[in-house]
Amino acid sequence: MGADNQQERLDVKWIVGFVDGEGCFHVALNKLPKMTLGWQVLPEFRVVQHQRDEAVLQKLKTYFGFGDIRRNHGDRKEFRVRGLENLNKLVHFFQKHPLQTSKHKSFELFSDILKMMNQKQHLTQKGLKKIANLASQMNRKVRRNL
Amino acid sequence: MGADNQQERLDVKWIVGFVDGEGCFHVALNKLPKMTLGWQVLPEFRVVQHQRDEAVLQKLKTYFGFGDIRRNHGDRKEFRVRGLENLNKLVHFFQKHPLQTSKHKSFELFSDILKMMNQKQHLTQKGLKKIANLASQMNRKVRRNL
Repeated sequence: MGADNQQERLDVKWIVGFVDGEGCFHVALNKLPKMTLGWQVLPEFRVVQHQRDEAVLQKLKTYFGFGDIRRNHGDRKEFRVRGLENLNKLVHFFQKHPLQTSKHKSFELFSDILKMMNQKQHLTQKGLKKIANLASQMNRKVRRNL
Repeated sequence: MGADNQQERLDVKWIVGFVDGEGCFHVALNKLPKMTLGWQVLPEFRVVQHQRDEAVLQKLKTYFGFGDIRRNHGDRKEFRVRGLENLNKLVHFFQKHPLQTSKHKSFELFSDILKMMNQKQHLTQKGLKKIANLASQMNRKVRRNL
């Protein structure tokens, strides 16, 4: 980014406030026969906005230096972060700049799951069960059907 | 608030980010026969959260020093600001600390309407029509039926 755009860079605390409102930490458990244990653990972070506000999603992407802008549903767009390396950086950001709403509880669970994945615990039956348990506490939709 | 709680005070930029996500600037035009022109102009600002996050609404109230915490619908609570004096202070805050999303457009219209109300233009037929026109641009639900 050029010097002209520096004043347009998002403020750290603004990002935390915006994510307290609009961010979503999610861990999906997908049945996938080709995986060793038959399940894929898919953590992701999303911020969804109406497409009129795609510019602010782009600024989030510019700030973090990773993630993708994609269509969500209909007229909505999302800033989406996947992949352990990027998500570890994201977790580090929100550990340094804590969320103020109850979303911090989902974040803590998300962070615990990432830590286990960093240690490859999701590749063991025991670890996978523990992750499923943590994920069920953060997203109500995850069924504890492992 | 005691010194112990000072670190719990919300950050200015966090508030802007949170309001970019969750805030709502609204001007209602209510048919009210007892008013001079038969219409009441009712501007208000709201932040709605699930009741589990009532604490953060309380912190907004503490920060601004005005507004009320009320039940919104079902399990949701709201921080609501009404009244010209308080809303003028709120407008001053967001003029000093601009919103980053397209919500700033609603804010600008809201701010224009408040300015007219400060000059008592809403008590004239001409002013009321102009306000109705501005309000119809910010809230899609307002019918231009004056």
